[in-house]
Amino acid sequence: MIAELMQARQGSHAYEVRVGDGVPDAAAALAREWESVALVSCARVLRTPFGKRVRAALARAGTCKLVHVLPDGEKGKTLAEMERAAVRLLKSGATRRSLVVALGGGAVTDAAGFLAATYMRGVSWAAVPTTLLAMVDAALGGKTAVNLPLAKNAVGAFHPPVAVLADPVSLRTLPDREVRSGLGEVVKYAALRPELLDRVREAARAGRTDAGLVAACARVKMEIVERDPTERGERKLLNLGHTFGHGVEAAGGFARYTHGESVAVGLAFAFRLARVLGRVDGAAVEALESVLAAARLPARVPAEVARRAARLMGYDKKRTSSGLQWVLPRTLAGGSWAVEWDIPADARAVQESVKEIGRRP
Amino acid sequence: MIAELMQARQGSHAYEVRVGDGVPDAAAALAREWESVALVSCARVLRTPFGKRVRAALARAGTCKLVHVLPDGEKGKTLAEMERAAVRLLKSGATRRSLVVALGGGAVTDAAGFLAATYMRGVSWAAVPTTLLAMVDAALGGKTAVNLPLAKNAVGAFHPPVAVLADPVSLRTLPDREVRSGLGEVVKYAALRPELLDRVREAARAGRTDAGLVAACARVKMEIVERDPTERGERKLLNLGHTFGHGVEAAGGFARYTHGESVAVGLAFAFRLARVLGRVDGAAVEALESVLAAARLPARVPAEVARRAARLMGYDKKRTSSGLQWVLPRTLAGGSWAVEWDIPADARAVQESVKEIGRRP
Repeated sequence: MIAELMQARQGSHAYEVRVGDGVPDAAAALAREWESVALVSCARVLRTPFGKRVRAALARAGTCKLVHVLPDGEKGKTLAEMERAAVRLLKSGATRRSLVVALGGGAVTDAAGFLAATYMRGVSWAAVPTTLLAMVDAALGGKTAVNLPLAKNAVGAFHPPVAVLADPVSLRTLPDREVRSGLGEVVKYAALRPELLDRVREAARAGRTDAGLVAACARVKMEIVERDPTERGERKLLNLGHTFGHGVEAAGGFARYTHGESVAVGLAFAFRLARVLGRVDGAAVEALESVLAAARLPARVPAEVARRAARLMGYDKKRTSSGLQWVLPRTLAGGSWAVEWDIPADARAVQESVKEIGRRP
Repeated sequence: MIAELMQARQGSHAYEVRVGDGVPDAAAALAREWESVALVSCARVLRTPFGKRVRAALARAGTCKLVHVLPDGEKGKTLAEMERAAVRLLKSGATRRSLVVALGGGAVTDAAGFLAATYMRGVSWAAVPTTLLAMVDAALGGKTAVNLPLAKNAVGAFHPPVAVLADPVSLRTLPDREVRSGLGEVVKYAALRPELLDRVREAARAGRTDAGLVAACARVKMEIVERDPTERGERKLLNLGHTFGHGVEAAGGFARYTHGESVAVGLAFAFRLARVLGRVDGAAVEALESVLAAARLPARVPAEVARRAARLMGYDKKRTSSGLQWVLPRTLAGGSWAVEWDIPADARAVQESVKEIGRRP
């Protein structure tokens, strides 16, 4: 495959999602359509061969007026960094008709997307995701955000990009931990679409994800987002593993566990909670955890982290006054499962699952 | 008049604008419809009799979980304050189904509206404007924003409120300068709708604005916003006086001149620029400036402020790569004028007008 082109649709807004070769040239072609372009990335990505190629391609396009370097990772996702970046956009002459190109992992696409959503009350942006996590999740669907000290993604906006350009070649230079982290979201898609389980398990064992699997995951997300752009219903499915997962991420100070590792633990938690509630049997938990193991992703955390995660998930955006609503699997006839949203769980079942997830020291 | 009720419409979103008596009770009735409410205001407003009445009414409603006090005025319109406020919302238990009630002048409604636009990617908000400026402009139309050190309202979002509740009784306790400042935006409506000129001149002389005039100005804005919610065309008219005006405001460090004073100077600038360009005659400039004088608002600034304002308006959101586009009057047969948008002006004409606006020391 050279490149798979898909059309994403959110309400009246449509944009192209491209997965495959040739992203630097595609980014340059896009940049030529805009009167000015600002590249927003981070040092870690700009050092890679792929980062250098995209930057050079944008420079050749002639409209790139600014390269703004966010701090690596979650450190770039703060309101203070948004102020610094917006001031640089302003000084570079960026107008309402400028394009922000976000080049990087999920932290960069989340932050640069939010910058674009709010700079002059909204400018266009394109995502060039460089991690598996960003390709199959963060860069798709138009959710943008920064973190508060207490809670991830607690400040943000819905602001879909004008294009998503994903080149799996960028995954080759990622550190092993980052690749495994990305598999956390890929395993989520397999949990949502069990027919993908074997394919994901194989990719996890091989430690490699090809463009075909990236495109398959992206398609699951895009289809769900198209049917429910503002997360009134079905889109909540994409939060599978994220309620407890965000708690784990916050409990580790957004540093100890990557997002994908946190989601992995959150997926294991969701399946165990579903088992405690009698929704699935032990085989479903085992099937899910075997894929996590193949990807060398954690399914458990130390007991004190699990307890702290349980407390912190109280700050989750998905909370309502009647408590957390869960996204949980339910066994179907034949042994497979379907995932459902807006499922309540009593405190005792949650506590029981927190205990299962927590390792004794 | 007890209260005038108007229906505002922006795209698919409709909301009530109420001008008149009984706002505390109306706010309490609204608050009872929400599972949790956060009141966002500033100390200056919460000290006033009207501020106390609204706060007490919300307390009686029983759903108000948080009173967050922003720094007075433009000091509350920063991304750092947005972070502090969002953390307090989070800790108070505010969810996506909470309502933010903004009680205050334009700075409070801009900032609290932006907080609502971005907290958990968007929660509902209502505006209870307490200054003339907020009643006829800031609280209407869904533009929300905070400032960057270099430019006013440079970071923001379009996020219309669910209700605007304006009670002119709140104007009675305002300091004289604040009342005159609000008249700056009222004069803008008279400049856009010259049939309002005499009525505004009288109100300016009397130093009093009644609910009828507030409602008339609000109606001009709502009609324009309804026809062009996202400022592709006609809504640009509402920026009359604001291009140079924002420059004046920035040149004074957002402290020396109030927003209304800056808009007054910006209106004089727009009419003088239109005269330099041969679009209007001296009589139009005089008519406009006589209303400013009746309101005891400035039409000129010291020469060095005018020069600095001219430089700083380069950061204006309305800039494009082909330079600033102006909103300017044009004389009609019969002596009145109409205002038009997207008017270019050559650098020499702008310089000439900057000189006219600048007083020798």
